[in-house]
Amino acid sequence: MKGAYLDHASATPVRKEVFEAMHPYFSEQFANPANVYDLGSKVKEALEAARANVAGLIGADPAQIIFTSSGAEANNLAVKGVAFARQKKGKHIIVSAIEHHSVLNSARFLERLDFEATFLPVNQNGLVDPERLAKAIRPETILVSVMHANTEIGTIEPISELATICREKDIGFHTDAVASVGNIAVDVNALNVDLLSLSGASLGAPKGVGALYFNKKVRLTPLIHGGIQENGRRAGTENVPGIVGLGKAAALAQKELPKKVDHLRKLRDRLVAGILKRVEKVTCTGHPEKRLSGHASFCFEAIEGEALIFMLAQSGIYTNTGSACASKALKTSPVLGAIGIRADLAQGSAVFTLNGHTTEEEIDYVLAKLPPVVDRLRALSPIWGKEIPEYELETIKEVKDVH
Amino acid sequence: MKGAYLDHASATPVRKEVFEAMHPYFSEQFANPANVYDLGSKVKEALEAARANVAGLIGADPAQIIFTSSGAEANNLAVKGVAFARQKKGKHIIVSAIEHHSVLNSARFLERLDFEATFLPVNQNGLVDPERLAKAIRPETILVSVMHANTEIGTIEPISELATICREKDIGFHTDAVASVGNIAVDVNALNVDLLSLSGASLGAPKGVGALYFNKKVRLTPLIHGGIQENGRRAGTENVPGIVGLGKAAALAQKELPKKVDHLRKLRDRLVAGILKRVEKVTCTGHPEKRLSGHASFCFEAIEGEALIFMLAQSGIYTNTGSACASKALKTSPVLGAIGIRADLAQGSAVFTLNGHTTEEEIDYVLAKLPPVVDRLRALSPIWGKEIPEYELETIKEVKDVH
Repeated sequence: MKGAYLDHASATPVRKEVFEAMHPYFSEQFANPANVYDLGSKVKEALEAARANVAGLIGADPAQIIFTSSGAEANNLAVKGVAFARQKKGKHIIVSAIEHHSVLNSARFLERLDFEATFLPVNQNGLVDPERLAKAIRPETILVSVMHANTEIGTIEPISELATICREKDIGFHTDAVASVGNIAVDVNALNVDLLSLSGASLGAPKGVGALYFNKKVRLTPLIHGGIQENGRRAGTENVPGIVGLGKAAALAQKELPKKVDHLRKLRDRLVAGILKRVEKVTCTGHPEKRLSGHASFCFEAIEGEALIFMLAQSGIYTNTGSACASKALKTSPVLGAIGIRADLAQGSAVFTLNGHTTEEEIDYVLAKLPPVVDRLRALSPIWGKEIPEYELETIKEVKDVH
Repeated sequence: MKGAYLDHASATPVRKEVFEAMHPYFSEQFANPANVYDLGSKVKEALEAARANVAGLIGADPAQIIFTSSGAEANNLAVKGVAFARQKKGKHIIVSAIEHHSVLNSARFLERLDFEATFLPVNQNGLVDPERLAKAIRPETILVSVMHANTEIGTIEPISELATICREKDIGFHTDAVASVGNIAVDVNALNVDLLSLSGASLGAPKGVGALYFNKKVRLTPLIHGGIQENGRRAGTENVPGIVGLGKAAALAQKELPKKVDHLRKLRDRLVAGILKRVEKVTCTGHPEKRLSGHASFCFEAIEGEALIFMLAQSGIYTNTGSACASKALKTSPVLGAIGIRADLAQGSAVFTLNGHTTEEEIDYVLAKLPPVVDRLRALSPIWGKEIPEYELETIKEVKDVH
């Protein structure tokens, strides 16, 4: 059957080369890297080689990489870890209103422990305004967290500009780069950040592994306390096969990136142009240029996103309504709310995320199948054809907590 | 080359059947279980089947299982999660002095956040005294954490007795069962506990996956905040292959347990008797009967444990000086200190942990190779043959923090 899997932001297959690299570390090279004997040392070497590859991908030193179990854990470690370590300096943190739930809900957790959190609004393209950040900073601000690129709307934030404001004031700056690493060039020095989260799952490594870059300009309290793994910053026996897989995926990503970016952009542009040509009353969300190369996001008027996803899946087309972690949790996406998308329009959100193996054939298949599905759903919609007020920009007032 | 791997507590190979069960979930069934479309639902089913298997192994309901990335994370989630959720009720917790570092250092972290922690002493066999626990309880006590069995000395604690004391006073009771699950029968109802940690790595599942049993009698604040995975109690895309592997390992463990326990005990007893017969001036640590069936632990007089490990490794014998996570961190084991082992004797600690595939041939190989290695090391020792005072019992005064 023909099909198109365009939901790589929520999950992507483990790459063949990655799986092969991991394979020996399940049952053959199984020793605990903490052990002093030879079996342990060999595993430890594999772990450190992986660390060097991950560091290489983002322009870091290997000693600055802390392996975690996911991007979400890396985000929790960054936000809570800096907050706990610096709380004597101040108890105010700033995060953007469109952060991943792992950042937003870490901030909410800290609020319950007498920290203060500012949720910084974004403009209609999802951009954080550096002047607005500068104004939100207080003497007691200890950490700012703004994501590199947003998973739902693809917008790339002006991280180096934001981070530089913080650097001058000795405020820790964290960026969640789960959506960007492997899809666009990411260099921790160019970005000027103190902490950066990434996830193996979005690089063709398996689920269950991520990493936090950490430049030691800010202190960090562990999220998982215990043994001395990861230099005492993250306890628990290391997920060796996962980490080896992440290392291999990082090495591949570094090699392939320039070519991949072009490939992704070409196919993405074909998808966007094709949809805008064939479907009426559809809005592109996020920034038109400052966006991830393999990312296209839309709101279809008078469409219920989940129904669209189900109907497309029947034709072997896999896409998403928003962030995978939130897909069952939230009626309306806080990200779309934050960029001022009307609630009814936000219901019709669809996000297409490509990877290096996506083909032109897949894109054309979507372009053939999507328009009739939209037509069919609109024919059933009680609001289709009714007068709808102009696209209204209103920034978010409150970010809802899922707990 | 002949050899014997007897360090299964620090790492054990992924079982063939486990690896085969996991295999399809890397590159074929790779979808995100949070996704509503069919690919996601199928993965979700596999996740829930694994949850049922893990629950089955410990007599729990599937809804009471939270998957984590390790036993250490499960311990952190239990201790901090209950502390944060119940802090309005009180801010006092009790843990035993011989807990795993993930429990001890979670307690130390809470102390820095104005919680109070009592580190409960143990007797010379490593047992927590229920009367002593009862006396340590205060009106503001919200949680007690005592491990089911100790990795370094093998002692099995009287958990149901301890937990029942807490149950009567509405104090949450957690047990770290990482060392016991799969090695002895573990039933959460018989143990009468509210929370129980386990690790995949000790069951022949891969590193990078663990679980926390949680009976909902106490509330729990997430350790990793974010999306709604694990019913909102542990965010981050699920480590699907790891979880599927843990499920398979749990199913195998449940089936094999009665036979395995006999096998382990027989071989362990052969090892202990053989060493005591062939080597002089050696002390068995932990409890002589109330101990893990596949666990033997010794302190050799006038021996430096790491040297012993290195020398044995040259003959293909792999064993440990103590807890793997601490092996590079600590000069003297806090566990051995807590049971009153003199510092010089504690240096000569060696821990042998068997698994279901350990053979009599391996045991006999150790019995042949170990005594001459001990002799050689003692011949080089400056303290061997000197007068050594009697084995002195002194309970621990302070548990040292590794951070």
